[in-house]
Amino acid sequence: MGKAAIGVIGLAVMGRNLALNIESRGHAVAVYNRSRTRTDEMLAEFRGRNLVPAYSLQEFVDSLEKPRRILLMVKAGEPTDATIAEVKPLLEPGDVLIDGGNTHFTDTVRRNEELAKSGLHFIGTGVSGGEEGALKGPSIMPGGPRDAYDLVAPILTEIAAKAPDGEPCVAYMGPGGAGHFVKMVHNGIEYGDMQLIAESYAVLKQVAGLSNAELGQVYAEWNEGELDSYLIDITAKIFRKRDEESGRDLVDMILDRAAQKGTGKWTSQNALDLGVPLPLITESVFARVLSSLKTQRVAASKVLVGPQPKAFTGDRAPFIEAVRRALYLSKVISYAQGFAQLRAASEEYDWNLQFGTIAKIFRAGCIIRARFLQKITDAYGKEPGLANLLLDPYFRDISENYQSALREVVTAAVAAGVPVPAFASAIAYFDGYRSERLPANLIQAQRDFFGAHTFERIDREGSFHAAWA
Amino acid sequence: MGKAAIGVIGLAVMGRNLALNIESRGHAVAVYNRSRTRTDEMLAEFRGRNLVPAYSLQEFVDSLEKPRRILLMVKAGEPTDATIAEVKPLLEPGDVLIDGGNTHFTDTVRRNEELAKSGLHFIGTGVSGGEEGALKGPSIMPGGPRDAYDLVAPILTEIAAKAPDGEPCVAYMGPGGAGHFVKMVHNGIEYGDMQLIAESYAVLKQVAGLSNAELGQVYAEWNEGELDSYLIDITAKIFRKRDEESGRDLVDMILDRAAQKGTGKWTSQNALDLGVPLPLITESVFARVLSSLKTQRVAASKVLVGPQPKAFTGDRAPFIEAVRRALYLSKVISYAQGFAQLRAASEEYDWNLQFGTIAKIFRAGCIIRARFLQKITDAYGKEPGLANLLLDPYFRDISENYQSALREVVTAAVAAGVPVPAFASAIAYFDGYRSERLPANLIQAQRDFFGAHTFERIDREGSFHAAWA
Repeated sequence: MGKAAIGVIGLAVMGRNLALNIESRGHAVAVYNRSRTRTDEMLAEFRGRNLVPAYSLQEFVDSLEKPRRILLMVKAGEPTDATIAEVKPLLEPGDVLIDGGNTHFTDTVRRNEELAKSGLHFIGTGVSGGEEGALKGPSIMPGGPRDAYDLVAPILTEIAAKAPDGEPCVAYMGPGGAGHFVKMVHNGIEYGDMQLIAESYAVLKQVAGLSNAELGQVYAEWNEGELDSYLIDITAKIFRKRDEESGRDLVDMILDRAAQKGTGKWTSQNALDLGVPLPLITESVFARVLSSLKTQRVAASKVLVGPQPKAFTGDRAPFIEAVRRALYLSKVISYAQGFAQLRAASEEYDWNLQFGTIAKIFRAGCIIRARFLQKITDAYGKEPGLANLLLDPYFRDISENYQSALREVVTAAVAAGVPVPAFASAIAYFDGYRSERLPANLIQAQRDFFGAHTFERIDREGSFHAAWA
Repeated sequence: MGKAAIGVIGLAVMGRNLALNIESRGHAVAVYNRSRTRTDEMLAEFRGRNLVPAYSLQEFVDSLEKPRRILLMVKAGEPTDATIAEVKPLLEPGDVLIDGGNTHFTDTVRRNEELAKSGLHFIGTGVSGGEEGALKGPSIMPGGPRDAYDLVAPILTEIAAKAPDGEPCVAYMGPGGAGHFVKMVHNGIEYGDMQLIAESYAVLKQVAGLSNAELGQVYAEWNEGELDSYLIDITAKIFRKRDEESGRDLVDMILDRAAQKGTGKWTSQNALDLGVPLPLITESVFARVLSSLKTQRVAASKVLVGPQPKAFTGDRAPFIEAVRRALYLSKVISYAQGFAQLRAASEEYDWNLQFGTIAKIFRAGCIIRARFLQKITDAYGKEPGLANLLLDPYFRDISENYQSALREVVTAAVAAGVPVPAFASAIAYFDGYRSERLPANLIQAQRDFFGAHTFERIDREGSFHAAWA
């Protein structure tokens, strides 16, 4: 019997579907799970597929072609460390371990260093696209030693999603934790996208009074234009879904407590460490947290009053168009922040990230897939050193043409008492970023006044301290 | 020769001034510094004061009454660990080490655990008030074992600032890292206060066209009312300070790049870990970061256009009053977020924090000292279980009466292209917190659609997954 081209450890839904995806490209795939039940179930369900079951790690390792390629799909954190510790003694120099879990990039950096000492290759890779993506084609963001990537590139390329132009959505991100870092920022951006859409929904419903049917129609139309994306597409579908139990629209039956798994939080915490402004994504993370305080909110809603509700009087169509523009410009601003974070990380950790390539592999397979990502690739293609996406001519034009809509929508929401933390944060960032002068001179004066922290001057170099008192 | 009541290790400005403060209350104070020059300089400068110099740690330890009380005023992080490691073998069970540095509370938790094994007491304490506070009376936030606190309480009480009603600004915060945690949140709140004042300055100057002289007048007047506080007071003075070099107002000669030392960042990162919404302080941290990107901003200001500047046409006095109200309500909202973080930390780390007491010891000595802190103490006095300060009748009334001003100021700033990230975040939080229903149902629908993450329903318990496609 021939050896398997690759093995997968961990047969929960993501691991199972990636194994099936690889197998479907004509490879024998070894499969192993800590509890054998899952392996047996998979074998039973997919009888006739070229899966090589193993019931011990030794058996698993022996069933693989050399250099061995092993995809770890176990829980991030300690379970991943435990699995690596168990399998490591069975491997030989030159073998490749691939962690496809939702790992914090600092763990990936550490594991790369540790495994390199034993001559083992380690790839930490982001995999985006959920269950279905894993099965049919995810967006894949691998990082680690370049020569290790070359050993797994053919298989990853086969199983990756294909962009509209046929290009596979996988590319070498960089050394160390670069792959998991890019995945983390992808997820942070996803938080921002979802919060922005939620705010557009709140404004359209609470300010302009749109029904669910109308909302479904609006998002479906938006999906035909600049906003064309997976998340807008499913939003349109969500508004059209009936709840069979109640006979009402399902969206109205869903409790308004957003959950999270922590990658948005990581993105914000890392931006704070790097010293990169990431307010929009961070507001989105906090908005989810605030939504989860449902009991407090219900109590507060009975105590804290807001503006009197008003019927919408103007013309609806231009207002809906303003919301569309506000959403698109805010999205642009959010990606400008996220890609600025990628740039800062690339410099800080010496990763040489290729920003245009990153946008390219987001074009299919992953949750944030969208037509406008091509514009980001184009922007970095023209100007690889671009400090901020907003400075690219296409995005600059969007900001010029759509900012009045964003200002209008924020104003309407603030007046109506509808919370729009991400929209408001977007315009504040835009106005701050384009401000030659900010009031931070006062902050420096205060710091020097109370703590002798010194300040710089506008007219000459140096640190200065004033005798304020 | 008698023994010293307490010893201070580290004679940089904060350590030196605390030593002098303690000595001024009638105690002999042993002083030690790693390089003896600093010790000699201090002795020479303060000849005749009851300072006991030591030139080795052994000599230092021998000069102290038992149980020994040692205040560490060395750099946070590794230097603190190194000093503890050096002095620890010279100490006996029952001695007390007090870390008065700017330490991350997790380090304090760790050191408490480690030192307890040797029978040593460890107190991690926040000390706020800068150089002058250290000398004349800081606000002191000690945490650690209660019996260790009792050994140092008399001295700390003597040297602490006194509130207007004569109460000393020191109190036992709680076990473990409680003291340094409270200091961290204090600093985060300070970031918020300073950013809000900076935004009020930007709006008054850029929207209403106030001169520095007028700004000085406005802040001085505000300082007579609800906003009465140290930061407003020094802001008024800053606008009246001339720059002798240029003959212009000094505030205009200061470069608008705000620096930071990291405690604001810690506060935001911890809020993300705890799952507490802290958007206003976090926007303030990011605003400082954005201000530091001066070169990028200058370049962007030439590329990205904003609204046409308009002369202010309305009546100035009511607009200035609106800004005052916006500032006060935003400040209330910021403290509501900060104190909610304290509550969450108290529950998470089991500290039993006394929120009213915390506000009380902020009333003098520290940077955020302000008249309105009494209102916070009063609120928790009436209702110790208050989930959020905004629900207290006094703060609820402020929110009811001042929200239209905050909405007006945010609207005016957004229309004029003046960035007000903290003001805008304040109203978004307020509107979010008082929302019985947020659009997070859509986020849950999306998460279930693409990742089968399930959702809750409004009509019955449980987790549900819909067949969306």
